[in-house]
Amino acid sequence: MRLRNVKNKEEIMNSSSYLIQFPDSYKGKWKELFGNNNPIYIEIGMGKGQFIINSAIMNPDINYIGIEKYDSVIAKALQKVPDGIKNLYMIREDALNIENLFSHEISKIFLNFSDPWPKKRHHLRRLSSEIFLKKYDNLFFGDNYIEMRTDNRDLFSYSLISFNNYDYKFLEVSLNLHLDNMPLVTTEYEDKFSNEGMPIYYLHCVKSKKDVN
Amino acid sequence: MRLRNVKNKEEIMNSSSYLIQFPDSYKGKWKELFGNNNPIYIEIGMGKGQFIINSAIMNPDINYIGIEKYDSVIAKALQKVPDGIKNLYMIREDALNIENLFSHEISKIFLNFSDPWPKKRHHLRRLSSEIFLKKYDNLFFGDNYIEMRTDNRDLFSYSLISFNNYDYKFLEVSLNLHLDNMPLVTTEYEDKFSNEGMPIYYLHCVKSKKDVN
Repeated sequence: MRLRNVKNKEEIMNSSSYLIQFPDSYKGKWKELFGNNNPIYIEIGMGKGQFIINSAIMNPDINYIGIEKYDSVIAKALQKVPDGIKNLYMIREDALNIENLFSHEISKIFLNFSDPWPKKRHHLRRLSSEIFLKKYDNLFFGDNYIEMRTDNRDLFSYSLISFNNYDYKFLEVSLNLHLDNMPLVTTEYEDKFSNEGMPIYYLHCVKSKKDVN
Repeated sequence: MRLRNVKNKEEIMNSSSYLIQFPDSYKGKWKELFGNNNPIYIEIGMGKGQFIINSAIMNPDINYIGIEKYDSVIAKALQKVPDGIKNLYMIREDALNIENLFSHEISKIFLNFSDPWPKKRHHLRRLSSEIFLKKYDNLFFGDNYIEMRTDNRDLFSYSLISFNNYDYKFLEVSLNLHLDNMPLVTTEYEDKFSNEGMPIYYLHCVKSKKDVN
């Protein structure tokens, strides 16, 4: 994520009712905030929010929470949220602290165009590293459904190994998503890379509770 | 595999000491034929043999068996085998009958540029379909090691799902093998496609005996 400072980011963040200021206090209670029992999908590293905002608009029976660690980025996302939407909130938090936010209440995680952390010594910072997969185990209500998209070849091959070794079952794999099965909702990055002719890699996988040792 | 008829194919096949005429009779006894206890690696669908012949030359402590179903193709491969090589044999057989050839004596299977069978109704003919993975279980001596290479995007994504769902653990995945880790030994197809700038997909995976239910 290329960061451009947003000058009035504090003002935007303080005034938006879509930003949850103390998200830890909703741990285990997100359905009360939404006021219904619809499934909750989260996007870790939502960037400027195009994917999760459009997902929320198109799927009113699913609740969405977007997580982003950079103030300037989440401020951009908050500015895009259309008034009156009931099934979307945003959280400014580092993914490392994800277990403080949710407890057995999430139905799906989206990892879209995550930081590839190209250096080998940084690989454990990748959102598909075993460190994070262990954290995710505690977030899910039922089976662990994860959808991942990236343009980064090395991150994707790493992630295929990581999810496989952590007992995720692959439901769908695409090595060129926009040729195989053009998605209805895309991210900002996805549009940019796809327009440049780069393949978008996609994985949909699940880990069943019954498989957990 | 584009087939060009080889006119004297019967003569080549009948005269080569590297073609095993009655391979079923060696089932469970291949080590006796090789005269040692070295691991046995097989390539199913070896085509014109460049990969397995060069592998055998470079790795004298491993025994290799190449399997190919088309007479004209195996005749080409037999013509390329250098005189005096001790760790290589070839078999003309359809992969469907692979269980008639080996019993718990193989250490690795190579699937190189297998027929992609692009039509959905033919997917079970793919050498990485569950039908074949079940057959392979009976071939291996220890853990099931399989290495796969292909230029075919759809075959590769299918195979990632198939191996994953059949409890293979991924050891290495590359979405552009010749950029990531240029192999020492290549196939004829691989050279052609790579020279045309197409990515070669690669998977190395293993299924442990202890994981078998």
